[in-house]
Amino acid sequence: MSTSRALVLGGNGFLGSHLVDALAAGGYQVDVLGRDPTLFNPGLVSQHAPRLRYHQGSFSDVELMRTLLTGADVIFHLVSSTIPASSNLNPVADIEDNLIATVRMLDLLREMPPKRVIYISSGGTVYGTPEYIPIPETHRLDPKNSYGIVKVAAEKYLHMYHELYGMNSLVLRLANPFGPRQMKIGVQGVIATVLMSVLHDKPITIWGDGGVVRDYVYIEDVTRLLLLVMDSPLLGTFNVGSGMGHSLQDILSIAEKITGKPPQVNYLPSRSFDIPEVVLDIGRIRYKVGWQPEVSLVEGMTRHWHWLQQHTDGI
Amino acid sequence: MSTSRALVLGGNGFLGSHLVDALAAGGYQVDVLGRDPTLFNPGLVSQHAPRLRYHQGSFSDVELMRTLLTGADVIFHLVSSTIPASSNLNPVADIEDNLIATVRMLDLLREMPPKRVIYISSGGTVYGTPEYIPIPETHRLDPKNSYGIVKVAAEKYLHMYHELYGMNSLVLRLANPFGPRQMKIGVQGVIATVLMSVLHDKPITIWGDGGVVRDYVYIEDVTRLLLLVMDSPLLGTFNVGSGMGHSLQDILSIAEKITGKPPQVNYLPSRSFDIPEVVLDIGRIRYKVGWQPEVSLVEGMTRHWHWLQQHTDGI
Repeated sequence: MSTSRALVLGGNGFLGSHLVDALAAGGYQVDVLGRDPTLFNPGLVSQHAPRLRYHQGSFSDVELMRTLLTGADVIFHLVSSTIPASSNLNPVADIEDNLIATVRMLDLLREMPPKRVIYISSGGTVYGTPEYIPIPETHRLDPKNSYGIVKVAAEKYLHMYHELYGMNSLVLRLANPFGPRQMKIGVQGVIATVLMSVLHDKPITIWGDGGVVRDYVYIEDVTRLLLLVMDSPLLGTFNVGSGMGHSLQDILSIAEKITGKPPQVNYLPSRSFDIPEVVLDIGRIRYKVGWQPEVSLVEGMTRHWHWLQQHTDGI
Repeated sequence: MSTSRALVLGGNGFLGSHLVDALAAGGYQVDVLGRDPTLFNPGLVSQHAPRLRYHQGSFSDVELMRTLLTGADVIFHLVSSTIPASSNLNPVADIEDNLIATVRMLDLLREMPPKRVIYISSGGTVYGTPEYIPIPETHRLDPKNSYGIVKVAAEKYLHMYHELYGMNSLVLRLANPFGPRQMKIGVQGVIATVLMSVLHDKPITIWGDGGVVRDYVYIEDVTRLLLLVMDSPLLGTFNVGSGMGHSLQDILSIAEKITGKPPQVNYLPSRSFDIPEVVLDIGRIRYKVGWQPEVSLVEGMTRHWHWLQQHTDGI
């Protein structure tokens, strides 16, 4: 299958903005669905018009979705109305906005000629507290928050629609992407938070001793993979990360080396719900498509730092 | 915690009708929620009034649910608007009617003094195709239909509300219960189907060679367990079944011995979605509460047969 028109659902986010950029730069027609055009990087539209079209609306709007899906060859599903930390506040809304809207999309796609669907799941939440590290895709799924429960259920529906109706679907369980544009766009990203705090000479708060380990992957490595798998026949579920673990203390040390200034940290007691270590095993995606990350944590943080210095408004 | 008032959500079903019976006979006040009073066993109401009260309404009716939950010490959640075979026809409705309504119930319970919640999950669908037999609770969850996906997500929310808010919740993954009242009440139950076919001299249809193995547990063993765990401090997730596997051919042979007549069978090609073998490992519930099934398959089918002969209208 060769893609000429891509639909990016959730194009306002950090990953979405980079993906839209990469797709448009690659010569693809790109439709973007987002809730709020003021959140969308205005530079992207002017830079890539007329290849890039922004559509304001809700992922739950069936008629709008039908129109957008009809015109697409490949659909990148990056929508999430919640983040892990806030999803537990209103699980019913989480299920309605994310799970039900996803299944409605799958039902719409059944009426249309085959299209490729790439779903961004969450390597950080679907496994819960890992039984072993690094975590392969075959690890038990035991999400501890609504965000993860909904991601797991959405994954299962994608597989079910593949089994029942031959839907061409790929699930990518993404680790912690980082890089330019993070911080202002979206609310996640410990690396951006640390670098911004140094830039603005403001202290950051860390729960626990900074020993929490995560799998940080540079955003351009992720978008490169997304374009690689877009036209491939790859099906199933794959981890996407760096495959390496770094603690918050590592991040602080690297930040000091890059910026020349030690981050100011307020340490608070650790939170019971923080999972100590999450590192994904990325052997499967490497084996299947030959992809591996090329930008190290230090290199990525250096690029991120330079970008932040040139974009103090965060855009 | 000592229970005086129990709420049975989904009391119209096969399991629900027996549970209501056992609770009322045990001296408990029982409130039953069901969609359609004409489906509820009329004998139960006259037999157990005034201890038994039937409430017609929807599990999704928040105000009705608030009233019923407020009055209860223990809640048995047996509601399912779908069955495994039909759940895939409308997954959105499945999620709305079962998952969202369950999470709404959990949200209502957060506002109230602590109550015990016993959720009936599905040992036959949450594991998908088993990697090994018998299946312990630690087996990977890989549901293949919407019914199972929703059950898994509901289980995870129950655990999350336990972790976050101390909710007193117990999940029971039930195998294939069988016994009197099955057939007319509800649409599941291969044993009832076989015995009814003999009773009425009508052929039954079997997909495949009859080698499909399931874990059949007699209904009275299940209700005995439900009353046992109701007042116990048991938390977590447990399989409930016989722990033994029997094929459809076994069922046919036993039926012939009991009834003196061989069932008439039309064999059709097997269906790809039928899981060949599901047998639950019941070691954990046995260890924790000392329960084990007491009625064998032959004994249970014999009782079922006698009941069917005396209740040819199926009630």
